[in-house]
Amino acid sequence: MINQLCEKIKKTGAPVVVGLDPMLDYIPAHIKKQAFSLAGETLEGAAEAIWQYNKGIVDAVYDLIPAVKPQIAMYEQFGVPGLAAFQKTVSYCKSKGLIVIGDVKRGDIGSTSAAYATAHLGKATVGGLKIAPFEEDFATVNPYLGTDGIKPFIDVCREEKKGIFILVKTSNPSSGEFQDRMIDGQPLYVHVAEKVVQWGQELMGDSYSYVGAVVGATYPEVGKALRRIMPKTFILVPGYGAQGGKGADLVHYFNEDGLGAIVNSSRGIIAAYKNEAYAAYGEEGYGDASRQAVKDMIRDIAGALERTVR
Amino acid sequence: MINQLCEKIKKTGAPVVVGLDPMLDYIPAHIKKQAFSLAGETLEGAAEAIWQYNKGIVDAVYDLIPAVKPQIAMYEQFGVPGLAAFQKTVSYCKSKGLIVIGDVKRGDIGSTSAAYATAHLGKATVGGLKIAPFEEDFATVNPYLGTDGIKPFIDVCREEKKGIFILVKTSNPSSGEFQDRMIDGQPLYVHVAEKVVQWGQELMGDSYSYVGAVVGATYPEVGKALRRIMPKTFILVPGYGAQGGKGADLVHYFNEDGLGAIVNSSRGIIAAYKNEAYAAYGEEGYGDASRQAVKDMIRDIAGALERTVR
Repeated sequence: MINQLCEKIKKTGAPVVVGLDPMLDYIPAHIKKQAFSLAGETLEGAAEAIWQYNKGIVDAVYDLIPAVKPQIAMYEQFGVPGLAAFQKTVSYCKSKGLIVIGDVKRGDIGSTSAAYATAHLGKATVGGLKIAPFEEDFATVNPYLGTDGIKPFIDVCREEKKGIFILVKTSNPSSGEFQDRMIDGQPLYVHVAEKVVQWGQELMGDSYSYVGAVVGATYPEVGKALRRIMPKTFILVPGYGAQGGKGADLVHYFNEDGLGAIVNSSRGIIAAYKNEAYAAYGEEGYGDASRQAVKDMIRDIAGALERTVR
Repeated sequence: MINQLCEKIKKTGAPVVVGLDPMLDYIPAHIKKQAFSLAGETLEGAAEAIWQYNKGIVDAVYDLIPAVKPQIAMYEQFGVPGLAAFQKTVSYCKSKGLIVIGDVKRGDIGSTSAAYATAHLGKATVGGLKIAPFEEDFATVNPYLGTDGIKPFIDVCREEKKGIFILVKTSNPSSGEFQDRMIDGQPLYVHVAEKVVQWGQELMGDSYSYVGAVVGATYPEVGKALRRIMPKTFILVPGYGAQGGKGADLVHYFNEDGLGAIVNSSRGIIAAYKNEAYAAYGEEGYGDASRQAVKDMIRDIAGALERTVR
């Protein structure tokens, strides 16, 4: 799957992933109205609204980008119907040829971690059958529990040719509280990065490992340092746009092959129509607004990469 | 809710929580047969089997214990139907008067963490209504992202009078890879514990904070040290029984009031009938085997607490 991700990035020229993190506040009134008239002001109604909203965005942008990253929390908050909408979204995106990164940030140990890996990347064994529950292509994973938490994911990735992105340095303001603390002269995130490299050696693709890392766009110096420490590790970069990251800040997250990183934007794309720059599209044109925002994001990042003489 | 937990522990004399972590391998053949005949060898069939199995255990033990801790991964691995079984289990346990600790180990930032908090402890706003999605009483939370990840949970806990347990030192062999690393002369888990105390001061119950900690039974010396560092923090202790922890090792996780900790056993209780000591109950008597295993666990822990002269 990591090889496919590289190919799709080259083909689209877009090291960009759209975060499908629907909040009800983002969803145009006409979609909510229709969904609530269908299923009421219920969890089912909310789930229907986010699914219809997602579909409009995916239909508008799928040909421009290699991948999407649905944030499962935004679905989980609407309970079982919300998670059904998550599954429907994953499945629809795959049918449109998109690679799906499940932003699930799961992390536990042993058989529990194996169960999460099964849920998101693998197949559950039921009687004599094997059934894929959510079927993403990649999942994000939390490293706090160490190798016991990661190994079961790697085992499933090996079997299914899927991948993970492990949280190394997150994009939020308080990420430094623990991640930046110095241990033997290096911040914790460097120690985590070194483990990511070690885990990744167990499962290499053609140029990059199936075991990737999450490094926030909001700490460009950290991104630059981690790029060197993890040369074969694909980096998923959240925090572009709404959280403050810009294309020019991100060139050092990439390798000289122009690969090695994929930059996520969520709100900046999916709620683009609420942004002054795209307001002319209006609520009804939210998909077109998202499409234009994706094009602008690709131009920003690909442009910055082209301008960089290394 | 932390006050209720204390009261229920005093009333039952059992600082014990049963981990409802159903694996298909644990489930007696007659339950699987019935579930598969009802819903086929499907995710729905697996979900029906774990629900029926859970119900049998809950019916057999609910009067002995204050709380249960369903591990959501074991349900998530069966996709949307599995998560419906999780919800059904939570709801059933609450109807039997049990406090439900959702072992979900979620952790993200800002609005995403808020969405997880809503999913498990809060209420989703849909149109003019507020609807509780999964409705646990407590949830476990991962601290790697710092205050940005924890604060939204605390906000929901304040509103709903619910609680969280934050991972401090986990029970698994590799927990030390990051958690034990020394920072300014103290292991990382101590720094996390100090933050847990700080976060906990924001939301105090009568004797303990609504913000608890997870400290594994497999590291008793760590438990003893953390008990002192976090005097008002309730400690959820996994790793008893199957993972190797024993009652006598755990007395120092408690305060002199006999409270301050609640010990979890999962496999040792729910799959007791597979253990030689309880094999006489047979598959059909799996509930009775679980009941006896709960009684033995309570005797082990309460006995060790009584014997301790402090």
